[in-house]
Amino acid sequence: MSEIEEFEAKAKRYFGKEVTDRDRAIFEGAITLGAVYHQFVGTPISKDAKVVSTLEKAIEKTMSLQPYIEKIEVKIDFNKIREASHPYDYSEVGGRNLSIRLVSKYGKSRVHMEMSYIQELDYPLMFIEKIEEED
Amino acid sequence: MSEIEEFEAKAKRYFGKEVTDRDRAIFEGAITLGAVYHQFVGTPISKDAKVVSTLEKAIEKTMSLQPYIEKIEVKIDFNKIREASHPYDYSEVGGRNLSIRLVSKYGKSRVHMEMSYIQELDYPLMFIEKIEEED
Amino acid sequence: MSEIEEFEAKAKRYFGKEVTDRDRAIFEGAITLGAVYHQFVGTPISKDAKVVSTLEKAIEKTMSLQPYIEKIEVKIDFNKIREASHPYDYSEVGGRNLSIRLVSKYGKSRVHMEMSYIQELDYPLMFIEKIEEED
Amino acid sequence: MSEIEEFEAKAKRYFGKEVTDRDRAIFEGAITLGAVYHQFVGTPISKDAKVVSTLEKAIEKTMSLQPYIEKIEVKIDFNKIREASHPYDYSEVGGRNLSIRLVSKYGKSRVHMEMSYIQELDYPLMFIEKIEEED
Repeated sequence: MSEIEEFEAKAKRYFGKEVTDRDRAIFEGAITLGAVYHQFVGTPISKDAKVVSTLEKAIEKTMSLQPYIEKIEVKIDFNKIREASHPYDYSEVGGRNLSIRLVSKYGKSRVHMEMSYIQELDYPLMFIEKIEEED
Repeated sequence: MSEIEEFEAKAKRYFGKEVTDRDRAIFEGAITLGAVYHQFVGTPISKDAKVVSTLEKAIEKTMSLQPYIEKIEVKIDFNKIREASHPYDYSEVGGRNLSIRLVSKYGKSRVHMEMSYIQELDYPLMFIEKIEEED
Repeated sequence: MSEIEEFEAKAKRYFGKEVTDRDRAIFEGAITLGAVYHQFVGTPISKDAKVVSTLEKAIEKTMSLQPYIEKIEVKIDFNKIREASHPYDYSEVGGRNLSIRLVSKYGKSRVHMEMSYIQELDYPLMFIEKIEEED
Repeated sequence: MSEIEEFEAKAKRYFGKEVTDRDRAIFEGAITLGAVYHQFVGTPISKDAKVVSTLEKAIEKTMSLQPYIEKIEVKIDFNKIREASHPYDYSEVGGRNLSIRLVSKYGKSRVHMEMSYIQELDYPLMFIEKIEEED
């Protein structure tokens, strides 16, 4: 058994026996979804494309370190960065400009989830787009 | 249909059709688990019981506002607050002293989950303790 | 020399010799002003007075642990909590609803500073209200 | 008067009349020092040089948007990233591995400040290295 498998075997004992691969993949992905928002909300941003893309990449690279995250894409929407009416000319990461798509995978289950600001709800909704299960 | 039901009906259309109540309860609870850690890590704390309990209550009251969170209990472990070797005499919230237990409920599913620092893993593990489904 | 004085004596050696008590009092207070905002921005809040006052107290008690903070008052403005148009019915701490007043003291200097959302600037301004120096 | 000058002229009226350029430069720099720590503490990191340098750059680029910050350098120390004893193999940004050097400038005053983990103090000290004033 590799060191990873050993650690996971120990960790697994803390989970209820009824917890399936599907449950676990959802669990791990959703933790990261909540984590991204609450870690980075409030970070200063500007309309400078370089600033925005550097931050997007940093969020992707750091948050994909979390367990069982297969892929993560972060977009900060230029057009939703509040046009600064003042000349300090910066805004901040928040629910209206941040969107996240991630894929978590545990065992045979792969879950696609997302956070996006939804106009009709006026709310940054987190939702599960798709659950895939291998046979 | 109440205003809440209407909002939820709209929100639900963004979720894949295969997403069950159980999936959703896990999803909502895990978001909050990740959110608590990344929102409050770094908050200054001391061994003063009053400071600690005020912060515990604030985390509980604010984070239980998140959707579908039925209950949340937060403990910051006095004994794991690093004994300050310096006289500024404070420490900060982190994975070693923070533990969270929460219950999320969606439809007929109720999920108990937890974050605790696990000695044998030397890691603040987040795990699903129990999943309950009403008939 | 007390343990605190010893620590401070050591810490002081890292500061430039030109740094006065006044400089230091401003420095310590401003660190905490920046810290409060970036620590708590994004925390869920509702219009429930109990939730709001519990969070205000927790911010005050934890952030006043920072070095040389004599006093800190935090207000989260009910009226500026965005009226939730959705029934998840909560909002979050941000620059428009959070205000902070603090007093830092180092040696003979005491500095009063504040963060408030200023209507005419459409900006949560941090500013020094008053600097007092004992003879 | 440019738009920036106009905004600053208005903002300045909130500051006490006794506040000098030197006071203001210290104030603005220290806000950002406190902000960086409390914004990014808890962000997952690994020993992968690419992850670390991407995050360093993102912190530099975003936090230098804050008012009157002339320059900011962020280092996350590889050697102080806790060797993961577990195979999830990541750690997080904290006071022991993060160091920040910044220069703030207001009017004729330029202030160099720093946050570094200081071994002999066992503490991530924030300090003013140097204050420069033009004639």
